[in-house]
Amino acid sequence: MQEIERKFLVHSLDFIAEATQAQKIAQGYLNSAPERTVRIRIKDDKGFITIKGKGDETGTTRFEWEKEIDLQEAEALLNLCETGVIDKTRYLIPKGNHTFEVDIFEGENKGLVMAEIELSDANEFFEKPNWLAEEVTNDEKYYNAYLSKKPFTTW
Amino acid sequence: MQEIERKFLVHSLDFIAEATQAQKIAQGYLNSAPERTVRIRIKDDKGFITIKGKGDETGTTRFEWEKEIDLQEAEALLNLCETGVIDKTRYLIPKGNHTFEVDIFEGENKGLVMAEIELSDANEFFEKPNWLAEEVTNDEKYYNAYLSKKPFTTW
Repeated sequence: MQEIERKFLVHSLDFIAEATQAQKIAQGYLNSAPERTVRIRIKDDKGFITIKGKGDETGTTRFEWEKEIDLQEAEALLNLCETGVIDKTRYLIPKGNHTFEVDIFEGENKGLVMAEIELSDANEFFEKPNWLAEEVTNDEKYYNAYLSKKPFTTW
Repeated sequence: MQEIERKFLVHSLDFIAEATQAQKIAQGYLNSAPERTVRIRIKDDKGFITIKGKGDETGTTRFEWEKEIDLQEAEALLNLCETGVIDKTRYLIPKGNHTFEVDIFEGENKGLVMAEIELSDANEFFEKPNWLAEEVTNDEKYYNAYLSKKPFTTW
Protein backbone atom coordinates (compact mmCIF):
# COMPACT_ATOMS: atom_id res chain seq x y z
CA MET A 1 0.00 0.00 0.00
CA GLN A 2 3.03 2.30 -0.40
CA GLU A 3 3.37 3.82 -3.84
CA ILE A 4 6.84 4.78 -5.13
CA GLU A 5 6.47 7.01 -8.12
CA ARG A 6 8.60 9.46 -10.07
CA LYS A 7 7.12 12.11 -12.35
CA PHE A 8 8.62 13.94 -15.33
CA LEU A 9 7.52 16.58 -17.77
CA VAL A 10 7.35 15.62 -21.43
CA HIS A 11 8.05 18.22 -24.13
CA SER A 12 7.60 16.12 -27.27
CA LEU A 13 4.85 13.83 -28.51
CA ASP A 14 7.36 11.23 -29.81
CA PHE A 15 6.19 8.83 -27.07
CA ILE A 16 2.85 8.27 -28.85
CA ALA A 17 4.49 6.12 -31.55
CA GLU A 18 5.82 3.80 -28.79
CA ALA A 19 2.53 3.53 -26.87
CA THR A 20 0.82 0.15 -26.67
CA GLN A 21 -2.42 1.45 -25.17
CA ALA A 22 -4.44 4.66 -24.70
CA GLN A 23 -7.14 5.28 -22.11
CA LYS A 24 -9.51 8.20 -21.56
CA ILE A 25 -9.50 9.30 -17.92
CA ALA A 26 -11.86 11.66 -16.06
CA GLN A 27 -11.18 12.25 -12.39
CA GLY A 28 -12.35 14.45 -9.57
CA TYR A 29 -11.63 14.85 -5.86
CA LEU A 30 -13.82 14.35 -2.82
CA ASN A 31 -10.82 15.76 -0.95
CA SER A 32 -7.89 17.36 -2.75
CA ALA A 33 -5.80 17.92 0.42
CA PRO A 34 -2.46 16.07 0.00
CA GLU A 35 -2.73 14.60 3.55
CA ARG A 36 -5.84 12.62 2.59
CA THR A 37 -6.59 12.79 -1.11
CA VAL A 38 -9.83 11.01 -2.09
CA ARG A 39 -10.07 10.59 -5.85
CA ILE A 40 -12.91 9.28 -8.05
CA ARG A 41 -11.69 8.16 -11.47
CA ILE A 42 -13.37 6.83 -14.59
CA LYS A 43 -10.88 5.05 -16.85
CA ASP A 44 -12.51 4.00 -20.14
CA ASP A 45 -15.59 2.11 -18.82
CA LYS A 46 -14.33 1.36 -15.30
CA GLY A 47 -14.73 3.29 -12.04
CA PHE A 48 -12.20 3.56 -9.21
CA ILE A 49 -11.91 5.16 -5.80
CA THR A 50 -8.37 5.93 -4.66
CA ILE A 51 -7.14 7.34 -1.35
CA LYS A 52 -3.62 8.69 -0.95
CA GLY A 53 -1.70 10.00 2.06
CA LYS A 54 0.93 12.70 2.06
CA GLY A 55 4.28 11.86 0.44
CA ASP A 56 7.38 11.41 2.58
CA GLU A 57 9.99 14.21 2.68
CA THR A 58 11.27 13.25 -0.79
CA GLY A 59 7.71 13.20 -2.19
CA THR A 60 8.42 9.83 -3.82
CA THR A 61 6.61 7.41 -1.47
CA ARG A 62 2.88 7.84 -0.74
CA PHE A 63 0.36 5.59 0.99
CA GLU A 64 -2.17 4.49 -1.62
CA TRP A 65 -5.40 2.51 -1.42
CA GLU A 66 -7.56 1.78 -4.47
CA LYS A 67 -10.77 -0.16 -5.23
CA GLU A 68 -12.65 -0.68 -8.46
CA ILE A 69 -16.25 0.47 -8.18
CA ASP A 70 -19.34 0.31 -10.37
CA LEU A 71 -19.22 2.75 -13.32
CA GLN A 72 -22.64 4.29 -12.59
CA GLU A 73 -21.69 4.72 -8.94
CA ALA A 74 -18.42 6.39 -10.01
CA GLU A 75 -20.42 8.81 -12.20
CA ALA A 76 -22.72 9.68 -9.28
CA LEU A 77 -19.70 10.17 -6.99
CA LEU A 78 -17.96 12.36 -9.61
CA ASN A 79 -20.96 14.70 -9.34
CA LEU A 80 -20.25 15.15 -5.61
CA CYS A 81 -16.62 16.11 -6.25
CA GLU A 82 -15.03 19.51 -5.76
CA THR A 83 -15.11 21.71 -8.88
CA GLY A 84 -12.27 21.06 -11.32
CA VAL A 85 -12.68 17.60 -12.84
CA ILE A 86 -9.52 16.58 -14.77
CA ASP A 87 -9.76 15.12 -18.27
CA LYS A 88 -6.77 13.45 -19.87
CA THR A 89 -5.66 10.70 -22.20
CA ARG A 90 -3.16 8.24 -20.77
CA TYR A 91 -0.67 6.40 -22.98
CA LEU A 92 1.12 3.28 -21.73
CA ILE A 93 4.71 2.90 -22.93
CA PRO A 94 6.67 -0.22 -21.89
CA LYS A 95 10.42 0.37 -21.43
CA GLY A 96 12.54 -2.51 -20.15
CA ASN A 97 10.99 -3.80 -16.89
CA HIS A 98 8.82 -0.74 -16.43
CA THR A 99 5.85 0.97 -18.02
CA PHE A 100 5.66 4.73 -18.39
CA GLU A 101 2.21 6.27 -18.07
CA VAL A 102 2.13 9.51 -20.04
CA ASP A 103 -0.86 11.84 -19.61
CA ILE A 104 -1.90 14.43 -22.17
CA PHE A 105 -4.14 16.81 -20.24
CA GLU A 106 -7.16 18.51 -21.77
CA GLY A 107 -9.50 21.37 -20.84
CA GLU A 108 -8.08 23.77 -18.27
CA ASN A 109 -4.83 21.78 -18.13
CA LYS A 110 -4.28 21.76 -21.89
CA GLY A 111 -0.59 22.06 -22.76
CA LEU A 112 0.59 19.87 -19.88
CA VAL A 113 2.07 16.44 -20.70
CA MET A 114 3.44 14.44 -17.79
CA ALA A 115 5.04 10.97 -17.45
CA GLU A 116 4.96 8.74 -14.36
CA ILE A 117 6.85 5.59 -13.57
CA GLU A 118 6.19 3.26 -10.63
CA LEU A 119 9.29 1.79 -8.96
CA SER A 120 9.84 -0.85 -6.31
CA ASP A 121 12.32 1.42 -4.54
CA ALA A 122 13.05 5.11 -4.99
CA ASN A 123 16.55 4.61 -6.40
CA GLU A 124 15.77 1.73 -8.74
CA PHE A 125 17.37 2.06 -12.19
CA PHE A 126 15.08 2.67 -15.14
CA GLU A 127 15.62 3.42 -18.81
CA LYS A 128 15.14 7.13 -19.65
CA PRO A 129 13.66 7.62 -23.13
CA ASN A 130 14.80 10.77 -24.95
CA TRP A 131 11.30 12.33 -24.75
CA LEU A 132 11.59 12.47 -20.94
CA ALA A 133 12.29 16.03 -19.68
CA GLU A 134 12.85 17.43 -16.17
CA GLU A 135 11.71 15.56 -13.04
CA VAL A 136 8.83 17.12 -11.03
CA THR A 137 8.28 14.36 -8.44
CA ASN A 138 8.77 16.76 -5.49
CA ASP A 139 6.76 19.64 -6.91
CA GLU A 140 3.26 19.55 -5.41
CA LYS A 141 1.82 21.86 -8.08
CA TYR A 142 2.01 18.92 -10.48
CA TYR A 143 -0.12 16.71 -8.21
CA ASN A 144 -3.38 16.10 -10.07
CA ALA A 145 -5.23 17.19 -6.92
CA TYR A 146 -3.56 20.61 -7.21
CA LEU A 147 -4.13 20.74 -10.96
CA SER A 148 -7.86 20.33 -10.31
CA LYS A 149 -7.80 23.55 -8.21
CA LYS A 150 -5.05 25.50 -10.01
CA PRO A 151 -5.03 24.24 -13.57
CA PHE A 152 -1.95 24.54 -15.79
CA THR A 153 -3.48 27.22 -18.07
CA THR A 154 -3.79 29.58 -15.07
CA TRP A 155 -0.10 29.38 -14.07
CA MET B 1 -28.52 5.67 -3.15
CA GLN B 2 -30.75 8.27 -1.43
CA GLU B 3 -30.90 7.94 2.33
CA ILE B 4 -33.96 9.17 4.20
CA GLU B 5 -33.20 9.40 7.86
CA ARG B 6 -34.63 11.12 10.93
CA LYS B 7 -32.63 11.70 14.09
CA PHE B 8 -33.73 12.19 17.68
CA LEU B 9 -32.10 12.81 21.01
CA VAL B 10 -32.54 10.19 23.70
CA HIS B 11 -32.65 11.20 27.38
CA SER B 12 -33.14 7.81 29.02
CA LEU B 13 -31.34 4.49 28.77
CA ASP B 14 -34.61 2.52 28.82
CA PHE B 15 -34.00 1.52 25.18
CA ILE B 16 -31.16 -0.82 26.18
CA ALA B 17 -33.62 -3.39 27.58
CA GLU B 18 -35.34 -3.52 24.17
CA ALA B 19 -32.12 -3.81 22.10
CA THR B 20 -31.53 -7.02 20.14
CA GLN B 21 -27.92 -6.21 19.21
CA ALA B 22 -25.00 -3.98 20.23
CA GLN B 23 -22.01 -3.03 18.05
CA LYS B 24 -18.83 -1.10 18.84
CA ILE B 25 -18.18 1.57 16.21
CA ALA B 26 -15.07 3.69 15.57
CA GLN B 27 -15.21 6.17 12.72
CA GLY B 28 -13.19 8.99 11.24
CA TYR B 29 -13.46 11.35 8.29
CA LEU B 30 -11.28 11.76 5.21
CA ASN B 31 -13.53 14.74 4.53
CA SER B 32 -15.97 16.07 7.12
CA ALA B 33 -17.51 18.71 4.82
CA PRO B 34 -21.27 18.02 4.56
CA GLU B 35 -21.18 18.49 0.74
CA ARG B 36 -18.93 15.43 0.34
CA THR B 37 -18.45 13.53 3.57
CA VAL B 38 -16.00 10.61 3.27
CA ARG B 39 -16.23 8.34 6.32
CA ILE B 40 -14.12 5.33 7.35
CA ARG B 41 -15.91 3.13 9.88
CA ILE B 42 -14.97 0.00 11.81
CA LYS B 43 -18.09 -1.80 13.09
CA ASP B 44 -17.14 -4.77 15.29
CA ASP B 45 -14.69 -6.60 12.97
CA LYS B 46 -15.79 -5.09 9.65
CA GLY B 47 -14.55 -2.06 7.74
CA PHE B 48 -16.64 0.32 5.63
CA ILE B 49 -16.14 3.39 3.48
CA THR B 50 -19.17 5.67 3.15
CA ILE B 51 -19.63 8.80 1.07
CA LYS B 52 -22.53 11.18 1.66
CA GLY B 53 -23.67 14.31 -0.14
CA LYS B 54 -25.37 17.32 1.41
CA GLY B 55 -28.94 16.87 2.64
CA ASP B 56 -31.85 18.52 0.83
CA GLU B 57 -33.45 21.66 2.33
CA THR B 58 -35.25 19.56 4.97
CA GLY B 59 -32.03 17.74 5.85
CA THR B 60 -33.85 14.40 5.69
CA THR B 61 -32.67 13.02 2.31
CA ARG B 62 -28.93 12.59 1.58
CA PHE B 63 -27.09 10.82 -1.24
CA GLU B 64 -25.25 7.85 0.31
CA TRP B 65 -22.78 5.34 -1.10
CA GLU B 66 -21.19 2.59 1.02
CA LYS B 67 -18.83 -0.34 0.47
CA GLU B 68 -17.47 -2.92 2.85
CA ILE B 69 -13.66 -2.93 2.88
CA ASP B 70 -10.96 -5.08 4.44
CA LEU B 71 -10.57 -4.51 8.21
CA GLN B 72 -6.80 -3.94 8.05
CA GLU B 73 -7.26 -1.51 5.16
CA ALA B 74 -9.94 0.32 7.18
CA GLU B 75 -7.49 0.62 10.09
CA ALA B 76 -4.80 2.05 7.79
CA LEU B 77 -7.32 4.51 6.30
CA LEU B 78 -8.53 5.52 9.79
CA ASN B 79 -4.92 6.65 10.44
CA LEU B 80 -5.16 9.07 7.49
CA CYS B 81 -8.36 10.65 8.82
CA GLU B 82 -8.78 14.16 10.19
CA THR B 83 -8.31 14.39 13.98
CA GLY B 84 -11.41 13.55 15.99
CA VAL B 85 -12.20 9.84 15.61
CA ILE B 86 -15.66 9.05 17.05
CA ASP B 87 -16.20 6.07 19.35
CA LYS B 88 -19.67 4.85 20.16
CA THR B 89 -21.78 1.81 20.93
CA ARG B 90 -24.76 1.26 18.68
CA TYR B 91 -27.89 -0.54 19.89
CA LEU B 92 -30.45 -1.93 17.42
CA ILE B 93 -34.06 -1.72 18.57
CA PRO B 94 -36.78 -3.16 16.28
CA LYS B 95 -40.13 -1.30 16.47
CA GLY B 96 -42.90 -2.38 14.11
CA ASN B 97 -41.56 -2.31 10.53
CA HIS B 98 -38.50 -0.25 11.46
CA THR B 99 -35.31 -0.55 13.45
CA PHE B 100 -34.00 2.28 15.58
CA GLU B 101 -30.24 2.64 15.79
CA VAL B 102 -29.35 4.29 19.08
CA ASP B 103 -25.77 5.46 19.61
CA ILE B 104 -24.20 6.01 23.02
CA PHE B 105 -21.19 8.21 22.34
CA GLU B 106 -17.92 7.93 24.23
CA GLY B 107 -14.76 10.00 24.63
CA GLU B 108 -15.15 13.66 23.71
CA ASN B 109 -18.83 13.10 22.87
CA LYS B 110 -19.69 11.41 26.19
CA GLY B 111 -23.17 12.36 27.37
CA LEU B 112 -24.70 12.33 23.90
CA VAL B 113 -27.23 9.60 23.07
CA MET B 114 -28.89 9.80 19.66
CA ALA B 115 -31.44 7.63 17.78
CA GLU B 116 -31.78 7.30 14.01
CA ILE B 117 -34.48 5.71 11.92
CA GLU B 118 -34.32 5.04 8.18
CA LEU B 119 -37.55 5.60 6.26
CA SER B 120 -38.66 4.89 2.72
CA ASP B 121 -40.15 8.38 2.48
CA ALA B 122 -39.77 11.40 4.72
CA ASN B 123 -43.36 11.39 5.99
CA GLU B 124 -43.70 7.64 6.55
CA PHE B 125 -45.40 6.74 9.84
CA PHE B 126 -43.28 5.09 12.51
CA GLU B 127 -43.90 4.08 16.10
CA LYS B 128 -42.39 6.55 18.62
CA PRO B 129 -41.12 4.76 21.73
CA ASN B 130 -41.37 6.79 24.96
CA TRP B 131 -37.58 7.07 25.28
CA LEU B 132 -37.48 9.17 22.08
CA ALA B 133 -36.94 12.90 22.80
CA GLU B 134 -36.74 15.94 20.46
CA GLU B 135 -35.99 15.60 16.74
CA VAL B 136 -32.60 16.96 15.54
CA THR B 137 -32.68 15.81 11.88
CA ASN B 138 -32.18 19.35 10.55
CA ASP B 139 -29.52 20.38 13.03
CA GLU B 140 -26.10 19.98 11.41
CA LYS B 141 -24.26 20.11 14.73
CA TYR B 142 -25.53 16.60 15.39
CA TYR B 143 -24.00 15.25 12.17
CA ASN B 144 -21.25 12.84 13.22
CA ALA B 145 -18.88 14.71 10.87
CA TYR B 146 -19.46 17.88 12.94
CA LEU B 147 -19.20 15.98 16.22
CA SER B 148 -15.73 14.81 15.14
CA LYS B 149 -14.63 18.48 14.90
CA LYS B 150 -16.78 20.04 17.64
CA PRO B 151 -17.49 17.27 20.11
CA PHE B 152 -20.50 17.38 22.44
CA THR B 153 -18.42 17.97 25.61
CA THR B 154 -17.17 21.29 24.15
CA TRP B 155 -20.66 22.75 23.48
